[in-house]
Amino acid sequence: MNKAIGVIDSGVGGLTVAYELMRQLPKEQLIYLGDTARCPYGPRVNDEVRTFTWEMVDFLMKKDIKMLIVACNTATAFTLNELKSNMSIPVIGVIKPGARAAINETKTNHIGVIGTEGTIRSNAYTKALNDIHAGLQVQSLACPSFVPMVEQGMLNGEQAEAMVTRSLYSLTQQEELDTLILGCTHYPLIKHTIQHVMGRDVAIISSSEETAREASTILEFRNLLYKGHNTPFHQFYSTGQMEVFATITEEIFKEFIDHFHSVTIEKAIL
Amino acid sequence: MNKAIGVIDSGVGGLTVAYELMRQLPKEQLIYLGDTARCPYGPRVNDEVRTFTWEMVDFLMKKDIKMLIVACNTATAFTLNELKSNMSIPVIGVIKPGARAAINETKTNHIGVIGTEGTIRSNAYTKALNDIHAGLQVQSLACPSFVPMVEQGMLNGEQAEAMVTRSLYSLTQQEELDTLILGCTHYPLIKHTIQHVMGRDVAIISSSEETAREASTILEFRNLLYKGHNTPFHQFYSTGQMEVFATITEEIFKEFIDHFHSVTIEKAIL
Repeated sequence: MNKAIGVIDSGVGGLTVAYELMRQLPKEQLIYLGDTARCPYGPRVNDEVRTFTWEMVDFLMKKDIKMLIVACNTATAFTLNELKSNMSIPVIGVIKPGARAAINETKTNHIGVIGTEGTIRSNAYTKALNDIHAGLQVQSLACPSFVPMVEQGMLNGEQAEAMVTRSLYSLTQQEELDTLILGCTHYPLIKHTIQHVMGRDVAIISSSEETAREASTILEFRNLLYKGHNTPFHQFYSTGQMEVFATITEEIFKEFIDHFHSVTIEKAIL
Repeated sequence: MNKAIGVIDSGVGGLTVAYELMRQLPKEQLIYLGDTARCPYGPRVNDEVRTFTWEMVDFLMKKDIKMLIVACNTATAFTLNELKSNMSIPVIGVIKPGARAAINETKTNHIGVIGTEGTIRSNAYTKALNDIHAGLQVQSLACPSFVPMVEQGMLNGEQAEAMVTRSLYSLTQQEELDTLILGCTHYPLIKHTIQHVMGRDVAIISSSEETAREASTILEFRNLLYKGHNTPFHQFYSTGQMEVFATITEEIFKEFIDHFHSVTIEKAIL
């Protein structure tokens, strides 16, 4: 029997990770849980994020998943180590994959990281980068306006560009910086605007894309890849407003839903 | 105590993997063994490659390595599964990392693979790609002239360009192909020439770069990353002509050798 990959997020940001999982691992099935009722996690304190995350994990563990992906940078920063040491299935966060991809990409060894206040305050990216490579210069910047912007559907256009330009100003002044990590799973949805503001010589690393890539690596390493030929059946759960969640989910996964016809979107009671 | 990462190759091609390991994991130490006396493995039969590979593995296991990287595509194609099931340390080949990176990269789902006759004949890339993603179109091509070309130091210039153009002709005619895997660890040394021949719209995937990236992923997953602050001490062994091997090694690792002053290059008796 094929078990699913479980994906948790504070809201809809982690859908970019789910999208990449479907694209890079089209045989695997997913169970996604977005805690939209309590989103955003970015400004919350450590203990609150931990409690909420464990509630989501418990919900998914009852569905017998084979791997857990913490698709929220804030939750990864605060809970990943604890989850890893307490769970028997592989647990993957979104921070280390982005860090490793940036190290692979950079030529100047000067890397930028943008994320929520919580993620940046936790210093998790700087630590992850320097644990592997002590010679890196890392510039972190919290961009608290980006998540609300994305949740409101403001993904491009003049207003979005102006807001991104204002937020990233200090990073655009760093001439040596050649790689920027999108340290929040909402940000891939405004990647084009960010790329435009940073200029085409700066490589933009999407932690969503890289996390899916590493999920593939670890599944193979642990011999957990699905080898059958059944059509995957994906389940999407949200703790909050179903209408908005369903609209966004259907919008993001249009191509896959059209293709597979096997998705459910339901309310989750934690 | 910090144990080393062991790297085996049929000759000098795997040095591109070692280079990437040093670049992406600068704290880790390496023990490299190149079977230059019996290179190339590409045209050899399965059993011979298996015997030679196990001899190299035995040599490195006596040195108590924490991870084995099979940095030769031919050896990976013929022996990886056997090594993985018989060894207690993590074993990584060069084929799956390249395959996963190509899946992440492609937009048209049309991927090219070039390698030695042995690698292409084994069908290992096509299998690795289709195991993960059944919807891919894969075009494989053996390029038997590339390894001798590289071993002779013919890395660019008119003659190299002409030879690469001739070899890759059938692939350049595939309009939908947007990603090309360098399925031989020698090929990153002629990457610029290959990129030039294929055109800038084709993404060139270096299995060396991607293998180092995945070594980083697995070391972290297995909690094997070195956390101390000692300068890494790298050992390079060759079974054949020491002079040529030492010259190539010093040429490739100039920047690292200048930096660390801690490399030995020795003859290996298997």
